[in-house]
Amino acid sequence: MGTNGKVIKCKAAIAWEAGKPLCIEEVEVAPPKAHEIRIQIIAISVCHTDTHPIDPKSEETFLPVILGHEAAGIVESVGPGVTNFKPGDKVIPLYMPQCRKCKFCLSPFTNLCEKLNLDKSPVVDQELMEDKTSRFTCKGKSIYHFMGISAFSQYTVVSDKNLAKIDDDANLERVCLLGCGFSTGYGAALNNAKVTPGSTCAIFGLGGVGLSAITGCKVAGASRIIAIDINSEKFTKAKALGATDCLNPRDLDKPVQKVIIEMTKGGVDFALDCAGGSETMRAALDCTKVGGGSCTFIGVAVGDKGLTISPLELIMGRTINGTTFGGWKGVDSVPKLVTDYKNKKFDLDVLVTHTLPFDKINEAFDLMHQGKR
Amino acid sequence: MGTNGKVIKCKAAIAWEAGKPLCIEEVEVAPPKAHEIRIQIIAISVCHTDTHPIDPKSEETFLPVILGHEAAGIVESVGPGVTNFKPGDKVIPLYMPQCRKCKFCLSPFTNLCEKLNLDKSPVVDQELMEDKTSRFTCKGKSIYHFMGISAFSQYTVVSDKNLAKIDDDANLERVCLLGCGFSTGYGAALNNAKVTPGSTCAIFGLGGVGLSAITGCKVAGASRIIAIDINSEKFTKAKALGATDCLNPRDLDKPVQKVIIEMTKGGVDFALDCAGGSETMRAALDCTKVGGGSCTFIGVAVGDKGLTISPLELIMGRTINGTTFGGWKGVDSVPKLVTDYKNKKFDLDVLVTHTLPFDKINEAFDLMHQGKR
Repeated sequence: MGTNGKVIKCKAAIAWEAGKPLCIEEVEVAPPKAHEIRIQIIAISVCHTDTHPIDPKSEETFLPVILGHEAAGIVESVGPGVTNFKPGDKVIPLYMPQCRKCKFCLSPFTNLCEKLNLDKSPVVDQELMEDKTSRFTCKGKSIYHFMGISAFSQYTVVSDKNLAKIDDDANLERVCLLGCGFSTGYGAALNNAKVTPGSTCAIFGLGGVGLSAITGCKVAGASRIIAIDINSEKFTKAKALGATDCLNPRDLDKPVQKVIIEMTKGGVDFALDCAGGSETMRAALDCTKVGGGSCTFIGVAVGDKGLTISPLELIMGRTINGTTFGGWKGVDSVPKLVTDYKNKKFDLDVLVTHTLPFDKINEAFDLMHQGKR
Repeated sequence: MGTNGKVIKCKAAIAWEAGKPLCIEEVEVAPPKAHEIRIQIIAISVCHTDTHPIDPKSEETFLPVILGHEAAGIVESVGPGVTNFKPGDKVIPLYMPQCRKCKFCLSPFTNLCEKLNLDKSPVVDQELMEDKTSRFTCKGKSIYHFMGISAFSQYTVVSDKNLAKIDDDANLERVCLLGCGFSTGYGAALNNAKVTPGSTCAIFGLGGVGLSAITGCKVAGASRIIAIDINSEKFTKAKALGATDCLNPRDLDKPVQKVIIEMTKGGVDFALDCAGGSETMRAALDCTKVGGGSCTFIGVAVGDKGLTISPLELIMGRTINGTTFGGWKGVDSVPKLVTDYKNKKFDLDVLVTHTLPFDKINEAFDLMHQGKR
């Protein structure tokens, strides 16, 4: 039954200051309160979103904080009122909660949940538990949570609305990717862009999200998938996953959108921007065909100035939308995605570039920033 | 059989220079060439788009030109190869052609047609006939066509792909509004936004397009329709057509989008911007609810700087799209709209504010600019 009721001392990576490396420290993790679950984190991966709170360009940060939101683990203990989880369950924490009761959860058109502080922007901080307190203490200081997860700790506490129970035989070192990157890119293609069979797609940015978007386009039956990145080393994996054409804008003598428009005789049916800066947003919109083209924004660049659009660009029949967590309602969908992975509907292994011990988490960040993941 | 083969001399309003009133002149209208039809124009209405070529802020204009694109008339004569029209037919000219053969016309997702010069922006000029010549001459000078129609002439020549044959008993002084304004607003709600029963809508700008968008929302079964304009005199008609709430931003002590978000507890399902400036585009997007809200842009303001969007505004589950001519494929749809009007599915009478003789066309422009239409 775990150590319900007792504080656990363990290792965690603390972000004390913006612009500085994380520090591995001993932290105290309080027991779960009502409708909370304490989890032993078994596998984590890193995502650019983990760098937002410590990016000196961020306008709003909560420090010190334990980052990390892409993970898989095992339930250690449960608080009062928790009925869907028991110690030993394999789980994936979810930064997009699903309460199953609010107007958003009851709508088929969104994966938002009222538990998110939707009046705020960005809204997915969840930097404290619902009772507005933290479960983490380090050197006598209260430490903020991050996105309701804080996976960069050997143990963490999450709400029972932010957790998906998965198959007992799931490989946690792989399915941790379903906590964000894979699900976001894959779902963006399937649930948000709603890629159609026989269509032509362009994917901008070939990190984990972009490669997963390629997988989504492939599973949806796209007949042409154009993959774009400024790092040509990523093209091998892109092709293995289904990309039919790869373009490096730095190797071209004209803007990549013009090349894509020429290649496709008028533009793609679906463009997905997994990079998230003004320049790729502009290229993604430009390369989308008039008369029914759809452009989906996934990436968010901190401090970026955004995209300026003229109504003329839209009245010719383009649609722009966006996605968070690929449109999946996590409590319901992540267990199914785990099963789909087990049934080889898609590949996660190809997304794993390096495996490092927890102590080397700053090296993982360095590798991510180098675009080598 | 009309005067097929002969030049017709008649009155037309010529725009000789940007920023100047139109001049009523005698023009020569050449007979229709292959796949062209010469029409006697019976009723016209004015639209802000008619002012674009003579707006000193416009970057690209073709002068001198005969403007006008919202009209109804009677076929005077037909050129070789025309099979679907005969002299005496009642017709509505279409600035969005429908050839029924190109990839766009064969797609159910767009009302564009390859006959539009889609590589250009704006693409709906059609300032010359397909053989790159004009049918109008005035004082020895060739005069440009406008949007393939040039309705501000007693007689004009259009392509057989730019014309809808309508019921013989249609009231041309009313159904001329189906040539642009009504169809655009009404179709934007039905075909582009795809307003759903029981939904909440916000309509920005209550000119002819905005009032017609209200009609579209009403016909689609919206349960709440919030109408916004800086001229409160327009609210009487808005309410008569189905608006449940009317807001004048100049009477509010905070931004209109905030008021709408409060009124609707989180934003509207559908926002339609029928005004077309950065400010209303921003308000329309802001007042659209997170988690499934849809924002449709209809208006285009000449020289406007557009809307700058952050991906964060979209990843929370908003969609942005736009419309030209309300998504209708004109040759197929306009005759049905005429029948729908006859069957009282919607009201056009309320949209007619003034009826003036052709000679007073500059007064009609003045009234439009005053927002009194």
